Amino acid sequence: MPEVLGPDAVDAAIAERGLAWSREGDELVKVAKRDRFAGALEFVNRVGALAEAADHHPDIDIRWDTVTLRLSTHSAGGLTEKDLGLAAEIDGLG
Amino acid sequence: MPEVLGPDAVDAAIAERGLAWSREGDELVKVAKRDRFAGALEFVNRVGALAEAADHHPDIDIRWDTVTLRLSTHSAGGLTEKDLGLAAEIDGLG
Repeated sequence: MPEVLGPDAVDAAIAERGLAWSREGDELVKVAKRDRFAGALEFVNRVGALAEAADHHPDIDIRWDTVTLRLSTHSAGGLTEKDLGLAAEIDGLG
Repeated sequence: MPEVLGPDAVDAAIAERGLAWSREGDELVKVAKRDRFAGALEFVNRVGALAEAADHHPDIDIRWDTVTLRLSTHSAGGLTEKDLGLAAEIDGLG
């Protein structure tokens, strides 16, 4: 079971690593706007491939051209390095 | 602009056509559980292809193996035949 990180530790990691995510309670949230619905769906598929590889899956909401991702380690009861690591990988998609 | 249908007309259409959707206010809602995340994502891609063909796009939420779809014709301000038609097509995916 990965260690749960407190809010200050998460906020510090977001800043230090330059993650394009915000912390909302015990979730990391990213809102990504893409080119129309097709671009949003393509992005979701790329996120999905990373999620499958990490065996860690964000909640994913698609609204036409906008995708909202929410990460948390539900099994651990909060945010962990698993979330920060996958967040960085998803940022790497550009 | 397609004609907005009242709640009674929508409910009647759902029953008559045997749609696996429920009406919540001015939205049609379908919750589909698939085989793990991979099955959910595959379903979303098939829904996405129908949505692009119809140029009408549901809101799509993915939670691991469960996909929630919400249809409404926002430009018309309510539910229309466009929603009922796409709902039936999505049901046809099985």
